[in-house]
Amino acid sequence: MYDLILKKRNGENLSKEEIYFIVKEFTNGNIPDYQMSAFLMAVYFSGMASKEITDFTIAMADSGEKIDLSTITGFKIDKHSTGGVGDKTTLVLAPLVAACGGKIAKMSGCCLGHTGGTIDKFESIPGFNTALTKEQFIENVNKIGIAIMRQTEQIVPADKLIYALRDVTATVDSIPLIAASIMSKKLASGSDGIILDVKTGNGAFMRKYEDAKKLAEVMVDIGGNAGRKTTAIITDMNQPLGYAVGNSIEVKEAIDTLNGTGPRDLMELCIELGGEMLLIFGLAKNNKEGKEKIINAIINGSGLKKFKELIKAQGGNPLVVENPSLLPQCKEKIEIKSEKSGYIKNINTCSIGIASQILGAGRKTRNDKIDLSVGIYLKKKISDKVIKGETIAVFHTDGNENKINEAKERFLNTYKINNKKINPPKLILAKVTKNKASNHI
Amino acid sequence: MYDLILKKRNGENLSKEEIYFIVKEFTNGNIPDYQMSAFLMAVYFSGMASKEITDFTIAMADSGEKIDLSTITGFKIDKHSTGGVGDKTTLVLAPLVAACGGKIAKMSGCCLGHTGGTIDKFESIPGFNTALTKEQFIENVNKIGIAIMRQTEQIVPADKLIYALRDVTATVDSIPLIAASIMSKKLASGSDGIILDVKTGNGAFMRKYEDAKKLAEVMVDIGGNAGRKTTAIITDMNQPLGYAVGNSIEVKEAIDTLNGTGPRDLMELCIELGGEMLLIFGLAKNNKEGKEKIINAIINGSGLKKFKELIKAQGGNPLVVENPSLLPQCKEKIEIKSEKSGYIKNINTCSIGIASQILGAGRKTRNDKIDLSVGIYLKKKISDKVIKGETIAVFHTDGNENKINEAKERFLNTYKINNKKINPPKLILAKVTKNKASNHI
Repeated sequence: MYDLILKKRNGENLSKEEIYFIVKEFTNGNIPDYQMSAFLMAVYFSGMASKEITDFTIAMADSGEKIDLSTITGFKIDKHSTGGVGDKTTLVLAPLVAACGGKIAKMSGCCLGHTGGTIDKFESIPGFNTALTKEQFIENVNKIGIAIMRQTEQIVPADKLIYALRDVTATVDSIPLIAASIMSKKLASGSDGIILDVKTGNGAFMRKYEDAKKLAEVMVDIGGNAGRKTTAIITDMNQPLGYAVGNSIEVKEAIDTLNGTGPRDLMELCIELGGEMLLIFGLAKNNKEGKEKIINAIINGSGLKKFKELIKAQGGNPLVVENPSLLPQCKEKIEIKSEKSGYIKNINTCSIGIASQILGAGRKTRNDKIDLSVGIYLKKKISDKVIKGETIAVFHTDGNENKINEAKERFLNTYKINNKKINPPKLILAKVTKNKASNHI
Repeated sequence: MYDLILKKRNGENLSKEEIYFIVKEFTNGNIPDYQMSAFLMAVYFSGMASKEITDFTIAMADSGEKIDLSTITGFKIDKHSTGGVGDKTTLVLAPLVAACGGKIAKMSGCCLGHTGGTIDKFESIPGFNTALTKEQFIENVNKIGIAIMRQTEQIVPADKLIYALRDVTATVDSIPLIAASIMSKKLASGSDGIILDVKTGNGAFMRKYEDAKKLAEVMVDIGGNAGRKTTAIITDMNQPLGYAVGNSIEVKEAIDTLNGTGPRDLMELCIELGGEMLLIFGLAKNNKEGKEKIINAIINGSGLKKFKELIKAQGGNPLVVENPSLLPQCKEKIEIKSEKSGYIKNINTCSIGIASQILGAGRKTRNDKIDLSVGIYLKKKISDKVIKGETIAVFHTDGNENKINEAKERFLNTYKINNKKINPPKLILAKVTKNKASNHI
């Protein structure tokens, strides 16, 4: 291991055998943490070549259980978002694509973000069970074209161990390591295609567009090298996606969107990603046709119908679709008023995430319990006009004064308002479909 | 600690308090190895500013026992060499300077090199004891102006812990870390002045001149910042110093040099360093006068006399000076013949060190026992003319065939001989007396 640290420190590339040695022996406990953390810091500085990153990712995927989806007939696609505030895309996108004939076998990990993850959002629906067995998962995809499953503990143990170490040694924000962490789980989950939504902006992990682009390129490169059809879309996260930030309020917004009455940006994103997915599936000749089919699935209600089928198949109460008040409801709603008049120029998206976490919508540590009913419902977004005293957001709370005051304090500084009229920001920034990654990242 | 790793990783400078926190809490076991190794790798890549290196060095010096030499009247100088093959300089230099009126309080650490360290060489003299108490050490310097003491275990514990971690995480060759390691021990040893012999070339730790120069500058900078008069000389180590490589055979060569009959290069180095030391002591007006005094101490025999006093004061047999056969003698001498005629162009100095270690002159691990009688006595050095079949070296051995064959194999490829006549290499390459270190190393 000493020689491999030295090699990486000196900027040399490691062979496949060397990469496998590191991942395997670290996972088995034969490489001490202090050598692995030195190696990870050397990777942070020296980077990795395209082939090394692919080897590293596949070695990680090979470190634990891999899901065999071969008994599902046809092509299967997994979708992943690098995470943002108010991102309920999967809840809308997956049923729409399934309604158009695509096979969605979606595995999702536990989330440590400002709000819950996709799993938490689905579990806001009373009775909805994401802890499927592999057999149920496969059976559901075969039967209704869609299933959502909580990632098992046995998937990519190397990533859990490596991530825990990165988290305490300032080696999280290394593009090769981020890409390998995400893609190893996608590879182990067994889908034939992968669609990636890489977020960038002040509410995303990748704040800078250039970093998001690099990450997207590296992930598409890994996917391609590993024989999976992979496409990435780079999207703006300089404000929350849609208006709802929380769990059950995001489910409500997803239902609205499937009904055709959702927020413009969420709608746009689902149509874009859905069109791309239908293209990968071979269910559309081009992106334009794919988008049209997705729009159709909204208009004719087949997406919403598929959502109800999904809920029913996983033990949930499908009546929430017609009656969203069956979703967990908060104790007390509090209107937040604007202290200024003008046009919204800027939103500190990360702070909105933190404010919703303070209200109870997200986890600080892995064992925290989420309050599925709370969150923040925005009334205004970038480019909107506001008048002093007008409601800019509604807090959905559990009535706890301390939390409310702390969240309010966080929230009030998030909006920058001035007198200049501006256009809303562009949502879809770029698409990465083949390896444009530079040779060494 | 996480924030400090991140800060260093991002190339920022740490404050004195932050540096002390790291050194103290790591030494106390409160910072885990995996965080420290990530920090050390970040230092390898990001470097350290002059002030940070000084803070780090002083924090390390403060991590354990410090020697108080204030009861020794007058200025005290410690000498350090970064290590090379055949380096017996201290054995000659220290008595010469003491004979000229300088106070030499020399502490020396255990050596893991190809041959023994200064302590091992002194202990080749029958009866010579380097495990002095602090009281004996101070008393001897006060009485005869010179004492040599084995470093206690309590000196700079932080360095032992950090070095052990660097050694297994490929973070040894970082100039700030090397400088801090060396200088922390010098600071803790309590001398007022420090003279450093920084070796460069194929037998030195710093192979490249530029690296040696940087290291010298950083160490002189630390010494100055810590209030010690510090001078470094950069010297060539592209061939062994003198002809003897071992332990007792190096003592013999040191005695010859004190007698005025030693090798030219060793003589030159001792005169240069000695002149510089007398200048720091204020015992000479300039380097030239200092050198003349050192030469005089050779000619008038006062250096040799001081050496005998030193041996006597530390329990050794001073008769070795007149009768070097009282030193440990090897079992069998083997002449190594040249396979080629011509001029010696190049010597692989490191390989000569390894060959002498194979014969038993050095340690591979800390607990190895050294054979003080064995080693390699060179007959030819760079620029010398040799004839095929002529003896180029004599192995001093314990008669073990396996060791002899292995050492011979190592040794025979060390000499590059061709027909072009060349000049001997320059020994003294540069002198570093004040801070010429760039701001960030």
